[in-house]
Amino acid sequence: MRKKLFAEFLGTFWLVFGGCGSALFAAAFPELGIGFVGVSIAFGLTVVAMAYGIGHISGAHLNPAVTIGLSISGRHSKKEILPYIFSQVFGAVVSASLLFIILNGSDSFSVGGFASNGYGELSPGGYNLTSVFLAEAVLTYFFLLVILGATDKGAPQGFAGLAIGLTLTLIHLVSIPISNTSVNPARSISQAIFAETAALSQVWLFLVAPVLGAILAGFSYKYLFEKNK
Amino acid sequence: MRKKLFAEFLGTFWLVFGGCGSALFAAAFPELGIGFVGVSIAFGLTVVAMAYGIGHISGAHLNPAVTIGLSISGRHSKKEILPYIFSQVFGAVVSASLLFIILNGSDSFSVGGFASNGYGELSPGGYNLTSVFLAEAVLTYFFLLVILGATDKGAPQGFAGLAIGLTLTLIHLVSIPISNTSVNPARSISQAIFAETAALSQVWLFLVAPVLGAILAGFSYKYLFEKNK
Amino acid sequence: MRKKLFAEFLGTFWLVFGGCGSALFAAAFPELGIGFVGVSIAFGLTVVAMAYGIGHISGAHLNPAVTIGLSISGRHSKKEILPYIFSQVFGAVVSASLLFIILNGSDSFSVGGFASNGYGELSPGGYNLTSVFLAEAVLTYFFLLVILGATDKGAPQGFAGLAIGLTLTLIHLVSIPISNTSVNPARSISQAIFAETAALSQVWLFLVAPVLGAILAGFSYKYLFEKNK
Amino acid sequence: MRKKLFAEFLGTFWLVFGGCGSALFAAAFPELGIGFVGVSIAFGLTVVAMAYGIGHISGAHLNPAVTIGLSISGRHSKKEILPYIFSQVFGAVVSASLLFIILNGSDSFSVGGFASNGYGELSPGGYNLTSVFLAEAVLTYFFLLVILGATDKGAPQGFAGLAIGLTLTLIHLVSIPISNTSVNPARSISQAIFAETAALSQVWLFLVAPVLGAILAGFSYKYLFEKNK
Repeated sequence: MRKKLFAEFLGTFWLVFGGCGSALFAAAFPELGIGFVGVSIAFGLTVVAMAYGIGHISGAHLNPAVTIGLSISGRHSKKEILPYIFSQVFGAVVSASLLFIILNGSDSFSVGGFASNGYGELSPGGYNLTSVFLAEAVLTYFFLLVILGATDKGAPQGFAGLAIGLTLTLIHLVSIPISNTSVNPARSISQAIFAETAALSQVWLFLVAPVLGAILAGFSYKYLFEKNK
Repeated sequence: MRKKLFAEFLGTFWLVFGGCGSALFAAAFPELGIGFVGVSIAFGLTVVAMAYGIGHISGAHLNPAVTIGLSISGRHSKKEILPYIFSQVFGAVVSASLLFIILNGSDSFSVGGFASNGYGELSPGGYNLTSVFLAEAVLTYFFLLVILGATDKGAPQGFAGLAIGLTLTLIHLVSIPISNTSVNPARSISQAIFAETAALSQVWLFLVAPVLGAILAGFSYKYLFEKNK
Repeated sequence: MRKKLFAEFLGTFWLVFGGCGSALFAAAFPELGIGFVGVSIAFGLTVVAMAYGIGHISGAHLNPAVTIGLSISGRHSKKEILPYIFSQVFGAVVSASLLFIILNGSDSFSVGGFASNGYGELSPGGYNLTSVFLAEAVLTYFFLLVILGATDKGAPQGFAGLAIGLTLTLIHLVSIPISNTSVNPARSISQAIFAETAALSQVWLFLVAPVLGAILAGFSYKYLFEKNK
Repeated sequence: MRKKLFAEFLGTFWLVFGGCGSALFAAAFPELGIGFVGVSIAFGLTVVAMAYGIGHISGAHLNPAVTIGLSISGRHSKKEILPYIFSQVFGAVVSASLLFIILNGSDSFSVGGFASNGYGELSPGGYNLTSVFLAEAVLTYFFLLVILGATDKGAPQGFAGLAIGLTLTLIHLVSIPISNTSVNPARSISQAIFAETAALSQVWLFLVAPVLGAILAGFSYKYLFEKNK
């Protein structure tokens, strides 16, 4: 168990460092910046890296919504939900602190919204609360569906890490303009506490919508596809 | 059978939500937008996600042309053609409705052509009917060839989902400027019914050309490569 | 044997249609164009598609330099060299013809250099003959080294198609500015015969340098790594 | 042993030729350049290529920090550390020489910083010594963690090359703006000796920080995850 919590701590640290880090350091670099494409690839690759790097230790959830969804569907022990979530949020916050320190080493840095998620005025494309809630819930629903399906016994062995990581890339390609993409409460909390904007007052949505999507996915995979198999 | 149709519904929903969604939300976002490269990656990854997520349930066709081509070559039951196509088109249309709702949550949105396919004036690069027809038929022909080959018993096991999904990325890299890339009647129908342009009057081409390419591929794979094996 | 030649014809057709097609249709599309990154990804994915799609039929060489290098190292029958090369060049030229026809369906098209390779004035970045020759020979040398190594019995099974295709992407990321990247005589011939520039007078380099690199790789893999195994 | 050293020589040559080459030739090409996204993909793919191409011969370390980290954790023979490092640095320097020669074949080339790493005035985004040191150490720490985890017996077989290579892509997506990304002393040395800037006087950091991160990773993987397995 201690190994698992270390792994989730390190894995979620890496998700935030790689994903939010790429957004903060490199997305808008003049002329050569990586844009939303690069940030989307980076987020997905944090999951690919950890799925193969620590997947055999903790399962590499890196995300409270994933832990909850897997537990709902019976794939993960319900007793481990809280310790996993604690490790994930802790890893994400420590990672955000380090990003903050490194960013302060350049004169061209100002905190602003950090890499926080938001709706309305804090949405990159100005999407309202309803659109953001729908997008986050639907995208997390499908994220969990892919996780549950790709780790199913019927699916090709070994490919789940690639399929799941690349699905996170896809999710970002769609929704960075909508909400800056969360589908992960730990990631959202870690950025909101550093943002100079009102991101912290909106962070509830990025807890509720992803978890709701994940719960629905857990139930629907179980009842649509696994019963009477 | 019910499971298969649920899977095709969800899978085609995801193809349209991820692929057309990335085009509508993120392609032309100022400065940081994902451009045609990002949209191409997104379409391909919807297939990667579903090949590993639901491939073991329904085969993850997500596309009437694929279902028809596989049936022609003897890889899929001819009796399931119509139910599969119905689920696919239904999933695509429901997905397009949700994209429409989410997009309306931002002031900067206007429907325009939605992510519809077209030729002549409705082609992104102004390609005429003949060019668009040729491109759609040839690209779908090779799409099916890769599907048939990569799922052949002689091919390395487990890699088909990656090979097929990345081939869809390739197809988009080539042909978004030509026709906005269909190779999938369900995707085309779902966007045409929302477009404010004349896309619906052109949608026939994106039913006929991909299906024609798929049928030719089904026959040619069977007779060129499988006979007297 | 007939099956193998059909497969090489179709595979090389696809390499030129996907790779050169992406360059001609999509690279420089205003604002949303895919640039050299997109073209590099496209070339690599043509190989991924065909490695899994037809690899079990013909080996998916798609390139005279590959066929020669594999034969030198003893991996492929020397008797099949000429028929393979004929099929590859034929497939590439038919593909280029189709690209030409489709491109003529848009008013914004002018032939210019097509997607031809060149040095000096015909190099995208103005690189001279020596630089282009060195780059083409070295890049093809390593391309063959990866092909020979990734298909070696000691390498992980099934991954060769991905490793080889993505290496072709890498080669393009480095060298499109140098020579527009050939490493493949069939690809070069197919474009040079349509170009309105002097590309055809330079095509010799894109036969000699890649084949030289491939021959050196065939010998060096055999003597450095396989002897006394 | 001779085979292993040849393989490390060729592999590190390829890492520098592909990674630094893409930066020098293609990153800032007008309009169509590959930017930091393309360079990040290129660096990662050099490792994918060599992991499958020569991984079965030498392990494809291509990086002194990797060799040291693997030895610390007990995965690699301590006796081979020095010969491996010598081959890697030698391969990197020969590769840089060839890049220099090819680049001189274009009039538009001036040496400047070559593709060297740096802090302060030599950091692309103006990051100071502390930020660069932290970033390089943390990123190499996680790079080794992924290498150690993905090649662990419990991880899916065959996927390590993809996971490790794509992690190097991710590392570049985050940190090119910070330090031009090293995490590899051989790569840094090879560029610094050609740069016309003061890069050589800063190269110590790119020896110390990556090696420190790698040593910490070697110890922490061994004690956190492997003891009492």
